[in-house]
Amino acid sequence: MRTPLLECPAAGEIAGARVLIKAESLQRTGSFKFRGAWNRISRLDAAALKGGVVAYSSGNHGQAVAAVARLLGAPAAIVMPADAPAMKIEATRAHGAEIVTYDRLRESREEIGATLAAARGATLVPPFDDPFIIAGQGTAGLEIADQAAAIDAVPDIVLVPCSGGGLVAGVATVVKARFPGAAIHAVEPEGFDDTTRSLRSGTREGNSPGAASFCDALLVARPGEITFPINRRLLAGGMAVPDADTAKAMAFAFRHLKLVLEPGGAIALAALLSGRIDARGKCAVVLCSGGNVDAAAFARAIG
Amino acid sequence: MRTPLLECPAAGEIAGARVLIKAESLQRTGSFKFRGAWNRISRLDAAALKGGVVAYSSGNHGQAVAAVARLLGAPAAIVMPADAPAMKIEATRAHGAEIVTYDRLRESREEIGATLAAARGATLVPPFDDPFIIAGQGTAGLEIADQAAAIDAVPDIVLVPCSGGGLVAGVATVVKARFPGAAIHAVEPEGFDDTTRSLRSGTREGNSPGAASFCDALLVARPGEITFPINRRLLAGGMAVPDADTAKAMAFAFRHLKLVLEPGGAIALAALLSGRIDARGKCAVVLCSGGNVDAAAFARAIG
Repeated sequence: MRTPLLECPAAGEIAGARVLIKAESLQRTGSFKFRGAWNRISRLDAAALKGGVVAYSSGNHGQAVAAVARLLGAPAAIVMPADAPAMKIEATRAHGAEIVTYDRLRESREEIGATLAAARGATLVPPFDDPFIIAGQGTAGLEIADQAAAIDAVPDIVLVPCSGGGLVAGVATVVKARFPGAAIHAVEPEGFDDTTRSLRSGTREGNSPGAASFCDALLVARPGEITFPINRRLLAGGMAVPDADTAKAMAFAFRHLKLVLEPGGAIALAALLSGRIDARGKCAVVLCSGGNVDAAAFARAIG
Repeated sequence: MRTPLLECPAAGEIAGARVLIKAESLQRTGSFKFRGAWNRISRLDAAALKGGVVAYSSGNHGQAVAAVARLLGAPAAIVMPADAPAMKIEATRAHGAEIVTYDRLRESREEIGATLAAARGATLVPPFDDPFIIAGQGTAGLEIADQAAAIDAVPDIVLVPCSGGGLVAGVATVVKARFPGAAIHAVEPEGFDDTTRSLRSGTREGNSPGAASFCDALLVARPGEITFPINRRLLAGGMAVPDADTAKAMAFAFRHLKLVLEPGGAIALAALLSGRIDARGKCAVVLCSGGNVDAAAFARAIG
């Protein structure tokens, strides 16, 4: 689905900028992840589809893989952390997938996923480190470029939530081709700023164990092998945002945009509203990547 | 702003229909009211703009008039019920308008508005009973027609929230011209089904005093003088929805559409999801008219 690019005068007043919101929370399954899952799974042939797909995911990728698999008639098994938001687990199950839970702190989702796929003869659909996944997520950037051009906007700054880096890599690939002057930034939760630090040092760095954030969609260990070289080449940099500012951005989106954003979906907006980037006099595109959040957590953030 | 027409497979499964959501909650000032206010106020000449504008409103029309007046450099005074949602009063004030509150049960907003406008030499901007307001709201219908055509959808059923009837009259005028087979229905809260009953009897009927609903945007006394003849000619009928079903529709929109809807904005969706209209095998367009709701009220509805 083509999601809207929404003018946000209220954010514009705060930032002294023209602010355009790419509302990927309105995408099928409530996040941008549908794009990559579709692009990857729809390329499988009939025999591979019959063998089914396996994915590991904190929730959004899993929902997307489950939904795409059902549309294409393939069985799906999704490996999810036992502490994922209940609504993400339920929604994934509602798409007809089998759910396999694991302990996020003690077990490796990559290993569980690979073992499961091998045992079943199923295809593993990785969350970000795959050229087709990156290209699929990049269609959000293609829409941004077309939609900005249609309203005579030239993006100076593009802010994109970042976990493994697939979304920002795909978006940067398109946007830098169409708007070479745009500065594209990855936005991460404090304690999970692996891409921000890796971009500074030039080498893939991991996060310290023991960090915590309510941005459940953005808790990855380190940048991807395929995504990082793309991001190193194309991004202007990265930045980390504390959860308190992200919660404020969720409340802002509720009040002014009438959008339901999950924590990870609101973090790029938080970077702008909290003044972590100077956008004065510029045109800033903010990608709001998802809206899958439990009612109780949402009520806490907006209350 | 052109608001998106969103496919909603989850509602489609429940209704056995193709369901398209016109998300007017994403309109400037959080409701469709900006359309009519802009169409009316932007026609005033420089002298009239200098004299200012006055509007009476439960909140959404007031916000829209305040925002348009500021864009056009006109002072605005908005007459609002003292028990309007706090966020609607605050948002109207934030657009630079003067707020005049009144007692919804004891005082006439029409009289207060007319007296204020006469005393100041200001222009009264009525909420619905005005050809330019109706035409302005009708631009939502124009977009529905264009957006449906662009995805090869032919609307069989169009469900529109109804208070004074300006929105549904404007939408029906366009949609019936473009899709003569479409059945357009007004949706009202239980206890405020004046248009539904008036369409049945053929004459403008009022609501019984003492009724209550949490759909604060839809508490009008009777259909408009100008809107009702249009609606009588073009609508297939009307229906009333209890608040409990509307609250469920707000929770559904939170969960599946990632849209913040206020009670009055969710009532047409409630009509569909609660089975008040049979849409099986058809294409149903549901207009979700606004998203201005207090955080506490929203948390209650989705909790």
